[in-house]
Amino acid sequence: MKALVYHGPGRRYWDDVPEPTLQDPEDALVRVDAVTICGTDLHILKGDVPTVEAPRILGHEAIGTVLEVGAGVRQVHAGDRVLISCISSCGRCRYCREARYGQCLGGGGWILGHRIDGTQAEQVRVPFADTSTYALPDSVGDEAALMLADILPTSYEVGVTSGAVQPGDVVAIVGAGPIGLAAVITARLLTPSAIVVIDPAPARRDAAKHFGADAALDPSEDVLGVLKELTDGLGADVAIEAVGVPETFEMCTTLVRAGGHVANVGVHGGPATLHLESLWIRDVTVTTGLVDTSTTPTLLRMLASRRLNVDGLVTHRYGLDEMQDAYDVFSRPADTGALKVALFRR
Amino acid sequence: MKALVYHGPGRRYWDDVPEPTLQDPEDALVRVDAVTICGTDLHILKGDVPTVEAPRILGHEAIGTVLEVGAGVRQVHAGDRVLISCISSCGRCRYCREARYGQCLGGGGWILGHRIDGTQAEQVRVPFADTSTYALPDSVGDEAALMLADILPTSYEVGVTSGAVQPGDVVAIVGAGPIGLAAVITARLLTPSAIVVIDPAPARRDAAKHFGADAALDPSEDVLGVLKELTDGLGADVAIEAVGVPETFEMCTTLVRAGGHVANVGVHGGPATLHLESLWIRDVTVTTGLVDTSTTPTLLRMLASRRLNVDGLVTHRYGLDEMQDAYDVFSRPADTGALKVALFRR
Amino acid sequence: MKALVYHGPGRRYWDDVPEPTLQDPEDALVRVDAVTICGTDLHILKGDVPTVEAPRILGHEAIGTVLEVGAGVRQVHAGDRVLISCISSCGRCRYCREARYGQCLGGGGWILGHRIDGTQAEQVRVPFADTSTYALPDSVGDEAALMLADILPTSYEVGVTSGAVQPGDVVAIVGAGPIGLAAVITARLLTPSAIVVIDPAPARRDAAKHFGADAALDPSEDVLGVLKELTDGLGADVAIEAVGVPETFEMCTTLVRAGGHVANVGVHGGPATLHLESLWIRDVTVTTGLVDTSTTPTLLRMLASRRLNVDGLVTHRYGLDEMQDAYDVFSRPADTGALKVALFRR
Amino acid sequence: MKALVYHGPGRRYWDDVPEPTLQDPEDALVRVDAVTICGTDLHILKGDVPTVEAPRILGHEAIGTVLEVGAGVRQVHAGDRVLISCISSCGRCRYCREARYGQCLGGGGWILGHRIDGTQAEQVRVPFADTSTYALPDSVGDEAALMLADILPTSYEVGVTSGAVQPGDVVAIVGAGPIGLAAVITARLLTPSAIVVIDPAPARRDAAKHFGADAALDPSEDVLGVLKELTDGLGADVAIEAVGVPETFEMCTTLVRAGGHVANVGVHGGPATLHLESLWIRDVTVTTGLVDTSTTPTLLRMLASRRLNVDGLVTHRYGLDEMQDAYDVFSRPADTGALKVALFRR
Repeated sequence: MKALVYHGPGRRYWDDVPEPTLQDPEDALVRVDAVTICGTDLHILKGDVPTVEAPRILGHEAIGTVLEVGAGVRQVHAGDRVLISCISSCGRCRYCREARYGQCLGGGGWILGHRIDGTQAEQVRVPFADTSTYALPDSVGDEAALMLADILPTSYEVGVTSGAVQPGDVVAIVGAGPIGLAAVITARLLTPSAIVVIDPAPARRDAAKHFGADAALDPSEDVLGVLKELTDGLGADVAIEAVGVPETFEMCTTLVRAGGHVANVGVHGGPATLHLESLWIRDVTVTTGLVDTSTTPTLLRMLASRRLNVDGLVTHRYGLDEMQDAYDVFSRPADTGALKVALFRR
Repeated sequence: MKALVYHGPGRRYWDDVPEPTLQDPEDALVRVDAVTICGTDLHILKGDVPTVEAPRILGHEAIGTVLEVGAGVRQVHAGDRVLISCISSCGRCRYCREARYGQCLGGGGWILGHRIDGTQAEQVRVPFADTSTYALPDSVGDEAALMLADILPTSYEVGVTSGAVQPGDVVAIVGAGPIGLAAVITARLLTPSAIVVIDPAPARRDAAKHFGADAALDPSEDVLGVLKELTDGLGADVAIEAVGVPETFEMCTTLVRAGGHVANVGVHGGPATLHLESLWIRDVTVTTGLVDTSTTPTLLRMLASRRLNVDGLVTHRYGLDEMQDAYDVFSRPADTGALKVALFRR
Repeated sequence: MKALVYHGPGRRYWDDVPEPTLQDPEDALVRVDAVTICGTDLHILKGDVPTVEAPRILGHEAIGTVLEVGAGVRQVHAGDRVLISCISSCGRCRYCREARYGQCLGGGGWILGHRIDGTQAEQVRVPFADTSTYALPDSVGDEAALMLADILPTSYEVGVTSGAVQPGDVVAIVGAGPIGLAAVITARLLTPSAIVVIDPAPARRDAAKHFGADAALDPSEDVLGVLKELTDGLGADVAIEAVGVPETFEMCTTLVRAGGHVANVGVHGGPATLHLESLWIRDVTVTTGLVDTSTTPTLLRMLASRRLNVDGLVTHRYGLDEMQDAYDVFSRPADTGALKVALFRR
Repeated sequence: MKALVYHGPGRRYWDDVPEPTLQDPEDALVRVDAVTICGTDLHILKGDVPTVEAPRILGHEAIGTVLEVGAGVRQVHAGDRVLISCISSCGRCRYCREARYGQCLGGGGWILGHRIDGTQAEQVRVPFADTSTYALPDSVGDEAALMLADILPTSYEVGVTSGAVQPGDVVAIVGAGPIGLAAVITARLLTPSAIVVIDPAPARRDAAKHFGADAALDPSEDVLGVLKELTDGLGADVAIEAVGVPETFEMCTTLVRAGGHVANVGVHGGPATLHLESLWIRDVTVTTGLVDTSTTPTLLRMLASRRLNVDGLVTHRYGLDEMQDAYDVFSRPADTGALKVALFRR
């Protein structure tokens, strides 16, 4: 079959590879019907994620049709249309038993396209199928469902929920890439008084407003001033970091009010400075986290009941065999305007 | 009257000063019966707290007898024996209405010995007396009650509660000064499986064990190894920073398990490095905070019912007029073994 | 001045009474600009609330202009346009310090139109003015603000928040009077997957749909069946009781899923049966409560930012001197279609 | 093999029955080394639990040695010494994924000795072995571990945790049978200011004091008066029902303060009256629940670290073949003083 294979920093190929097979009784073999590319895949290709060993099929987000399941799989059956989530869960370890699946100690966590072969292929082997895939109702289309594989639960759990967004809050979201925009969408589930997005790219600021931000600012503007005006001079109730560089994280810690939350969602490659000399006295909570996908069933229900609208997040569509083109477009968002790209089996 | 007056960095005098008077209908005038010195007072004397303007009477922890109250005071009466807390609360602002008194926007917060004259004097004016003093039952002695003025609620609220200590947790406490030891005492209220204290001073490690630490380690020892052995290899559920320098904060972020909490209690004069390149994926919650003293009534009840035992925290006792000696001893703990010093009206 | 005075069961008069005067330094004297009637006022008139002693001016919801304040009032000034809330708060007692103002031990709680004269008058004395009134921004009109005096915070705090409504939940609301409809409005702040309202009156079911209910059922329909269909057979995540009779409470306990919440908002005059023989094993949480109005500032912010829309709750408008007519209409909702009635100074 | 078999109301026999065999790949076959009897077993024998179909081997609490496991079991191995918990968990359903194992939809929940054969036998088949058994460290003896099979997690989760016991609280526990006494033990993990136990049996009141109750009262005494004296007139912060009859539940609702919690742990056979006419205004939270055993790993850690002391809960010890004698003694606690009885393989 064909697959997008990482052969080391800077080297990705649309290779012929052997079809996967069941290796464990709890595996499912899934035909990929739709798949997307994540910013993390670009990090891997730059060589930033040393835990990825070449050759490795990339990808951790897909929709597919189950071809075959192992003898230990009970709830997933051949023919099922399923969501393949970025997080696998053994279902047995301490973290899985506490619904913290991202930290799975039993062989799960973020493994697809990372420690084992991933979803950017015609077929994929999914371990722990019962607890790592989700049956899709007909009412949820492939494209919307793809948003559930990573960016919706990530922004909702690690940004909105860890940030403790409450009705009436003023929420600052730094970064308006796919994750930041998904944070706008999922923050709105809690009806903040205002969502203020900060991003240097005008097109992304426009996108932020399209998805419901009340204001979208360039970082050079008086962001703190705008937030203070909205909050009787206090600052943001919640600041969500959705970029992954020290500057944006540090900005978040200056935007937040005493008693507020900074929720880091970005993937960081280096340390940031934490200004404890001013923060120690300000009752600030800083959270980090990998998504658990514990909210995936809820978000799926909300997609089905039209409480979540993700139209517009997918900007480019391809056939699966146009994977290299899709990567090209996705990796140059400033030129292409790409948010999420979707590739479909044809 | 006599008072300990800060006249600028390095300059403290036991001065004759005018007696305070009521300035606001919600003030109380209190005769100081017992008072203590805080590490923060030493910071002020070093010039580290520029918001303190000389001349200023220091001190924010005392027990006293009410001499007179303003017309707007309802619950405090002349003759009452009261605790004067480090935090004043206007009772009306947004933060006071949310029980976050430390962040009071109405003229309270940490003001005594900071923005107005404090408690290291024969008398002190206490603003917002109804919501900033606590009537003391006879069953709680002056010395125990003094520990309620700052270190018990600080360690309990900012360390133990913000750190979300739960029964069965393994708790690391970095620093065994008065705040760290109070954190040992108040963490035990939640019955952790183990409390591991880290401090370079052997005497303080002994003190930590006296107050209930299960282990007390020098920072040069394999602290993480000890914690991992107690937690099936995961690391501490909660790490409490009770020193206030970057190294100890950063140590806390390495000791904590995925899904755990770092609660910063220390007063910091400079920034620390936050290693987001490893923390972003680990589901860590970092909290900072100034005490609210919202738990003071509860802690007082527990002192009265003997659920809290603070014997041994006061190592040195003086008359009020021996204030300078008390400062000398308190500022050289390595030589004197001082934890808390108490000064009494005679 | 004129006021609506309760003279015992069944006897209400639009009387000439003396103007109120300041009785305490923390009082404010307020001219009533707009006022409404509550279902509780009807209960009082039936003699159901024996703690109300005749003669008593009724009413606990109003908008007004401050005429005069006592010497102890700091944040409210003559000329201010303020919301007078159904709950007064002394700001000093244990419950007020914990933001549970409805249970105030210091002379507050629900006192207006209950233990002291209320707001259905040309003027009203408001105790504890700093902590019991709320300055209104120009952007919030009188009629919308009136909804903040009781029904919005009551339905939000006692129904939605105590019921722990979460995004994606299926919420059943039993009763579509003003409180039930306000529960529909405020539940939507959390974006449930579905809100199902149950009420025997077709007009109220229509109103429920107007305010955002996804379904509105007669109690004789298969309510549980509808809820199970929405929840894979489990039942409602949250059931909110907004009537106040045993039958509706008991219905709520049958509608809720294992692990769900029943939030009682209704005012009850008699006991209900709790079927512990089936509930003991089902992990159900039942809450009761009087509103604290702790969320009033937040809800006010949301009215100002157009996140809350209360248009349509007021169905009838009168001059203040038409108070008796307003009572007539409000007390016969089945005939008049009345939800909330508003009376304005002219 | 031998087993205690229920043959219908009033009929229990120590029968010869076939040895169990593996029926599912996730089963384990366990040799019973120690087992106990639960009050629920007596209910079954009275015919109170119609979901139990005769003939059925009773028992849902045991310690054993694994004889054999199915092909789908990963973490449990032949030879392991394990705790068999009263709750089985499929690990895959919505409730299991949310750590609410007691409500398992996938074939688990309370099944042992209820819907399938139980532990009062020489061998037992345990479904979902990976997520329904717990490896025991050598440091925890059989007798202490037996207390973990039901009464410790039940009292801790359904009583103490659902009741939201906090340090400093005053806790009333109604009923001093094994569950009530375990509630005393586990409530102490949170260091209440006072624990007041109510039970009519003098011997059980003595036991309550032995396990750490501060007071133990006969229901005819002025229980509310005692609680009010401890709480400035408010009433208990938390009331835990540990009997299972309407009177004790209703007593709990009268003992609790405004803002407090009533946690029902008792197994009820009939309804109780909920006095909403007084409770509606008092901010009371009532919880019910079946244990999830989600805290079993934590409690096990605390037994191992000597933070939990259960000495004295087992009052009578037998050989496994003395099952009928053990039942006789356990079913007449007033005469025998029995709390928990333990039966051991010899």
